[in-house]
Amino acid sequence: MPEYTAPLRDMRFLLNEVFEADKMWAEMPRLAEVVDTETADAILEEAAKIAGDVLAPLNRDGDEVGTKLVDGEVITPKGFKEAYKTFSDGGWFALGGNPEFGGMGMPKMLVGQVEEMMQGANMSFGLMPMLTAGACLSMNVHGSQELKDKYLPNMYAGPWSGAMDLTEPHAGTDLGIIRTKAEPNADGSYNITGTKIFITWGDHDMAENVIHLVLAKLPDAPSGPKGISLFLVPKILVNEDGSLGEANNTSVGSLEHKMGIKASATCVMNFDNAKGWLLGGENKGLNCMFTMMNYERVGVGIQGIGAAENSYQNAVTYANDRLQSRSPTGKQQPEKAADPIMVHPDVRRMLLTMRALTEGGRAFSAYAAKWLDTSKFTDDENQKKHADSMISLLTPVVKSFLTDTALESTIAGQQVFGGHGFIREWGQEQLVRDVRITQIYEGTNGIQSLDLIGRKIAANGGAFFKLYIEEINAFIATQESNEKMAEFINPLKAAVANLVDLTEWVMEKAQGNANEIGASSVEFLQVFGYTSFSYMFAMSSVVALEKEGSEPFYKNKLATARFYTKRLLPRYISLSEAVKGGADCLFELEADQF
Amino acid sequence: MPEYTAPLRDMRFLLNEVFEADKMWAEMPRLAEVVDTETADAILEEAAKIAGDVLAPLNRDGDEVGTKLVDGEVITPKGFKEAYKTFSDGGWFALGGNPEFGGMGMPKMLVGQVEEMMQGANMSFGLMPMLTAGACLSMNVHGSQELKDKYLPNMYAGPWSGAMDLTEPHAGTDLGIIRTKAEPNADGSYNITGTKIFITWGDHDMAENVIHLVLAKLPDAPSGPKGISLFLVPKILVNEDGSLGEANNTSVGSLEHKMGIKASATCVMNFDNAKGWLLGGENKGLNCMFTMMNYERVGVGIQGIGAAENSYQNAVTYANDRLQSRSPTGKQQPEKAADPIMVHPDVRRMLLTMRALTEGGRAFSAYAAKWLDTSKFTDDENQKKHADSMISLLTPVVKSFLTDTALESTIAGQQVFGGHGFIREWGQEQLVRDVRITQIYEGTNGIQSLDLIGRKIAANGGAFFKLYIEEINAFIATQESNEKMAEFINPLKAAVANLVDLTEWVMEKAQGNANEIGASSVEFLQVFGYTSFSYMFAMSSVVALEKEGSEPFYKNKLATARFYTKRLLPRYISLSEAVKGGADCLFELEADQF
Repeated sequence: MPEYTAPLRDMRFLLNEVFEADKMWAEMPRLAEVVDTETADAILEEAAKIAGDVLAPLNRDGDEVGTKLVDGEVITPKGFKEAYKTFSDGGWFALGGNPEFGGMGMPKMLVGQVEEMMQGANMSFGLMPMLTAGACLSMNVHGSQELKDKYLPNMYAGPWSGAMDLTEPHAGTDLGIIRTKAEPNADGSYNITGTKIFITWGDHDMAENVIHLVLAKLPDAPSGPKGISLFLVPKILVNEDGSLGEANNTSVGSLEHKMGIKASATCVMNFDNAKGWLLGGENKGLNCMFTMMNYERVGVGIQGIGAAENSYQNAVTYANDRLQSRSPTGKQQPEKAADPIMVHPDVRRMLLTMRALTEGGRAFSAYAAKWLDTSKFTDDENQKKHADSMISLLTPVVKSFLTDTALESTIAGQQVFGGHGFIREWGQEQLVRDVRITQIYEGTNGIQSLDLIGRKIAANGGAFFKLYIEEINAFIATQESNEKMAEFINPLKAAVANLVDLTEWVMEKAQGNANEIGASSVEFLQVFGYTSFSYMFAMSSVVALEKEGSEPFYKNKLATARFYTKRLLPRYISLSEAVKGGADCLFELEADQF
Repeated sequence: MPEYTAPLRDMRFLLNEVFEADKMWAEMPRLAEVVDTETADAILEEAAKIAGDVLAPLNRDGDEVGTKLVDGEVITPKGFKEAYKTFSDGGWFALGGNPEFGGMGMPKMLVGQVEEMMQGANMSFGLMPMLTAGACLSMNVHGSQELKDKYLPNMYAGPWSGAMDLTEPHAGTDLGIIRTKAEPNADGSYNITGTKIFITWGDHDMAENVIHLVLAKLPDAPSGPKGISLFLVPKILVNEDGSLGEANNTSVGSLEHKMGIKASATCVMNFDNAKGWLLGGENKGLNCMFTMMNYERVGVGIQGIGAAENSYQNAVTYANDRLQSRSPTGKQQPEKAADPIMVHPDVRRMLLTMRALTEGGRAFSAYAAKWLDTSKFTDDENQKKHADSMISLLTPVVKSFLTDTALESTIAGQQVFGGHGFIREWGQEQLVRDVRITQIYEGTNGIQSLDLIGRKIAANGGAFFKLYIEEINAFIATQESNEKMAEFINPLKAAVANLVDLTEWVMEKAQGNANEIGASSVEFLQVFGYTSFSYMFAMSSVVALEKEGSEPFYKNKLATARFYTKRLLPRYISLSEAVKGGADCLFELEADQF
């Protein structure tokens, strides 16, 4: 059976040594009240136990058994109910929540590490706190005091979970064309009618209630994205005194049959004059979604890292255990019939690729989380504005790049196992199937890349982008005289210069051809990602070089950074060339000639 | 339901226009007797019907139901038995077989196209003729006249299928350490005892008998790969008169639970003093395997193309049907709620990537097949030697590169579908799961890459490699004055120069460090692959340019070649950089520090 151990050492390295989270926390009163290094450490320790001891052991069986719809009820695999209880009893749903309603108010930098553990141990389960947290976030910002009082405490405490109901059969990326209707009632509530698909944990038997946030259109709404409103629609209506009342008119039409995350319920949800309450203003639904979008998207990137870490750990164990052939440099374990496959350069290449992409991703998501925290917790308007710009810019990259690299990692982690990687019992193929969805949902990676180059760069004349480049260049400047850093700084400089050039190239091209943005977007995002990871590795190498002699951890950090710099970072060169291949070659073929 | 239509036009283009197979066939008496363009065309037409009408409709259900082991019997999904009968009644098992025993003696260039159709329509089923053909090939070369007379006719005719039994639980890549024993009997037969795993179609209910080719060790065999012998072990013993006799002592221990190709039985096979007959000489087992290895490996590459083509076709249909958002250049279908997603540059990028990789792969496998045919059918010793060198060199590239690119293609074909790509009913995710095994079995792609750079290049001082480069350079020379070809020839020249440089770089480095070969191998193979596809596109562009005005097909060919040249070929640059990152950075981490 595959095993999962939370990578606590690396998480602490990022929080305490690279990003010095404690300093930031101490500066922000709302954080200073609730968290310091010691508290964070204790939380990480406890989370690691839940992930390793409670969630990971359910992962394989959950995949085999799946969640089932029986007489309209969603039945989760054996053990999930108990895990849910352990999870909510431990207060984990409350971790990032608003203290006013029972949340713990923890920063995303810490919450993100906990998320990685839960997702890494069991992605199907991990989706549950993720969706609930997202729903709570939106409700917290856009809900009336009454709605918040009524719903948030039970969601933070766990008896009620949350779901996001956006997609319809004909409307995925293009939410402007949804058909679900909301008709106002005299009492201020609305009647919601329509069908939603792909609703993760839209229903299940672990919680007493499911709180849906549903996108729908008011009768007089303008067409397109500006005519969408967001409604809170509980599965079971809540009485004035907070007790559960009658069932609302919601039902599960069916569960999807999926490639992966099979233990999670992906519901077709039917709303048939279900009672709902408006969140945020009329026709402000998409705005309300964006509130939680940055968090959710960073969360999806983190899912990728979690799965990749899990795959890496099991691949390392296998590579050290499996005896097969001899090292190219001669027998390493002559007393055995063959050497462990860890001796083979290509096996190491695969493992180091996974390791570098996972460490780079973990650092990058923590870096993004730092900006989310700054935006949420700072009292300084300028700092907030800066943080908002950065998070706008970085979110699509975290979501896409960390999930693209996670697929690569889990594929490599499967390949290390040879034929056994294809066999379900070993668990490696499940991670590939599970992680595959992260490139698709919460806005496909193609859509993310358009968001990056179109909305986040082109639309503001590169203002956010400039902030980021200035920051990297300022960091580079601090290291110019550090000779030991040259092996990381010089390649980073070259990558940044290339990224700046490439951005200018695309912006210029886009003047003449509206298709040029979309034609360059995916590879552009990847160039942005590889360059960003180079920045992450350079930052962590500064710390690692200072402490190199103290414990092997730091030597390993540098080894991974070197591998990344020499063997993965150069990918930006070809990706940039592909971008410069331009849009014209995409439009030579007529649609009916494909 | 997903659909599959054999890409006959492209297959004919390759056979008749690019490689002018008919000329070669006419020159070789054993081919001239059995095949010309007209016959080939008729075979392609008929195969297309079997693939599209018989095999493709079974593919989704086969995946859902899977093959089951019930009371020791392997039960195939509904419809498979009937399909098998249609397939064998049509003579398809005999296609490439030796006419002396009822085979049709067709060239691999043609057989490969038929294989692509069957694999593309239903990979689980397609494995059956592939394995049978491989077993027949070995038997044909290494079997005694008696064994051939006894077994081949029924295998070509279909009532008996073939299986290859190599892997053991502890011995996959490293066959030298297998434990299965063969003890000689007085009558010239052997008693085979041992356990084999991962035996594709090791047993099933579609054929009357299964003929296993089993690797085992004789009592006095030397240790390692030089002590392996190959035995023919039928499931049911065959009487002197050719009728079926008693059951042999073989049994299916279990079926593997796999990520994909679920309708195919992957058996644990137990041999308990099962009766077998030696094929080839004592301790010559690995040699005997190599006979069919080149065919099988080319066949695995072809499996990749088949799956990628299937995914491409369904992605194109979806991209033209699915309405979502508007073109960046303005509404294209203003009367509808949204434009078909085919208008989006990134959707086109994904589809063209699939198209280019699939067409490039199809051409490259046909090119490799041409050398297989030359080797098998020529009477000219020099020509045979040349062909053998080429096929040695190219086989690992066909196997690996076509399956790596097939995974990329099927992933892209899934991505085009957005969330629906993750849902099983649409079929796209199955193709990803099915194709994934092609990178693993028949020698992992890592092992193939070592074979290429180690055995096929370094070991002979680059002699085979030089032949290939000379051929490409000679082709380039013929096009130097063709101005219209410059857009393809110049990038090809640059790619070839890079490949030559890179090869020299690796050879030189390898002098000083035995790990350098393995450290560079995977990326080196990919550089070789991208360069080879560039050669393929250049060759087909010569033809397409000549006929550009005649039908859209040729214009499309050029468009795809341009897309490949501008947006995919540049990948070799970064891959070469990665190779030059060298081996040292793979060995900084101690094994226990991963």
